[in-house]
Amino acid sequence: MSWFEDFKNKDLRTLARLITLCEDGDPQVIDPLGEIFSMPSRATVIGITGPPGAGKSTLLNTFVRLIRNKNQKVAVLAVDPVSPFSGGALLGDRIRLMDHFNDPNVFIRSVSTRGKLGGLSLATRQGVMLLDRFGFDVILVETVGVGQSEVDVRKIADVTLVALVPEWGDSIQALKAGILEIADIFVVNKADREGADRIENELKNILHISGKDSTPVLKTTFNDLSTVEKLLAAVEGYTNAQKEQIQQKREKAIHEIALELMEFWVLREAQQWMRSHLDKSSNPYEIVKRFQKKFPPGTLFS
Amino acid sequence: MSWFEDFKNKDLRTLARLITLCEDGDPQVIDPLGEIFSMPSRATVIGITGPPGAGKSTLLNTFVRLIRNKNQKVAVLAVDPVSPFSGGALLGDRIRLMDHFNDPNVFIRSVSTRGKLGGLSLATRQGVMLLDRFGFDVILVETVGVGQSEVDVRKIADVTLVALVPEWGDSIQALKAGILEIADIFVVNKADREGADRIENELKNILHISGKDSTPVLKTTFNDLSTVEKLLAAVEGYTNAQKEQIQQKREKAIHEIALELMEFWVLREAQQWMRSHLDKSSNPYEIVKRFQKKFPPGTLFS
Repeated sequence: MSWFEDFKNKDLRTLARLITLCEDGDPQVIDPLGEIFSMPSRATVIGITGPPGAGKSTLLNTFVRLIRNKNQKVAVLAVDPVSPFSGGALLGDRIRLMDHFNDPNVFIRSVSTRGKLGGLSLATRQGVMLLDRFGFDVILVETVGVGQSEVDVRKIADVTLVALVPEWGDSIQALKAGILEIADIFVVNKADREGADRIENELKNILHISGKDSTPVLKTTFNDLSTVEKLLAAVEGYTNAQKEQIQQKREKAIHEIALELMEFWVLREAQQWMRSHLDKSSNPYEIVKRFQKKFPPGTLFS
Repeated sequence: MSWFEDFKNKDLRTLARLITLCEDGDPQVIDPLGEIFSMPSRATVIGITGPPGAGKSTLLNTFVRLIRNKNQKVAVLAVDPVSPFSGGALLGDRIRLMDHFNDPNVFIRSVSTRGKLGGLSLATRQGVMLLDRFGFDVILVETVGVGQSEVDVRKIADVTLVALVPEWGDSIQALKAGILEIADIFVVNKADREGADRIENELKNILHISGKDSTPVLKTTFNDLSTVEKLLAAVEGYTNAQKEQIQQKREKAIHEIALELMEFWVLREAQQWMRSHLDKSSNPYEIVKRFQKKFPPGTLFS
């Protein structure tokens, strides 16, 4: 039985093992991924980002519930850029998602890279691709950190939500960090708390000044499901209206996956070569010049 | 006159232009950098990171003053990971450093990459290398964002300070984000404000639990210069005590520069090749397999 067969037969363990191989940057993953890539794609990919404490996990949990109520299959991919340090900082937050632990149509997984070659961005893209081809209708990709994250969720998701909370005082600082460019939709979570209207108005003002009036700003209150339903409807509205742009983004993503795979492969080779050829007196620029001489511009890939 | 000659003659414009070429990922930079790399290195590289609003700019400004009082030459390299979005989010904060605008022994520069190949990490490393060989005694590298930054300042700096402020309420969230592993020294800035003792005690507790009691936690008050003097003394104490580890880190950095340069070069080639060979029906995994077939493991660099 091949990886591909098991995957097509909807074996969840095969899915999980393939994601782990992507995290590990294991070269043997390339063959099965190449076959899986050619399967049909149909999922909607929703990115959710925002600072720590912005209610992302609760929002995710509510999304999962609402999506399941529509009888769709949903996967959550939590991108964990800090795990080389902490060994899975986001895991605690994930526990809330255990509500759905026994539902086979809900798949929850974090992705990290343990500092090996390949990179978090590639592992995340591949994870999303696998979940899509596996047959999930909706894929929720969660990242922490706005504008600085190692993973640019915007490139991976069809639509990107930026979550804020009223308490998040230093909003102007964060806006400087480029979230205006990231957000397709803003979400003010925990909107029953003080300051929700202020942050909503601030956001709308800044969007207006930046000529982005069309970016929706929605407020949610987690004990009022209808607020999250409205948000999901806005997401659907966005993906319907932007079909063409989303298709273009996905085609661009193919290019980016190819580049990142190439990077992964070549760096792996370079790493191994350098381990035996570099010492503390080496001049790294001389090494590159030697390589350039061996492969003058335009010859390496021809 | 060559780049190298101008650089050796301490021409500041040449220094600035080389840093710009590094930001642009310009391949012609490799030759001059290869020559400059072989010049003697003597600078101490101090990394300063922390969340927005943590007083990093004021701390930098005070550092610069104190270092200048000792008649040492000092450079500030502000790493700006968000500029692809905002076009230089940090620039506003930089204005405070204008105090030193007319001092030729103070060099202030931000580094970003405008989204081209090469990457912020490589541009930053090369910037630090250039400033070092140019003759600055101290190089201060500032980054925003802890644990998630595209640039791992810890790998670039000899000693890394993580700055916090009492108001930074959600400290536990940030600790989860791995700052314990990043900080060689913690700094609680604006320590005359409420909550300074609380955050100091919290930090010390967590350090104790993590077996990192030896990591100093210092408080600074910007209108009391002696607090920042003590911090600088702690930095010096650290770099003196860790000479061997710092040397090892720098040797490892040579390896990393070589890898990143190789990555830059190969990806540039791959990018150009793919632009004419990829279309929307391409399977990125097949492209990589074709390349692997052309260069089986162990053959590309041999």
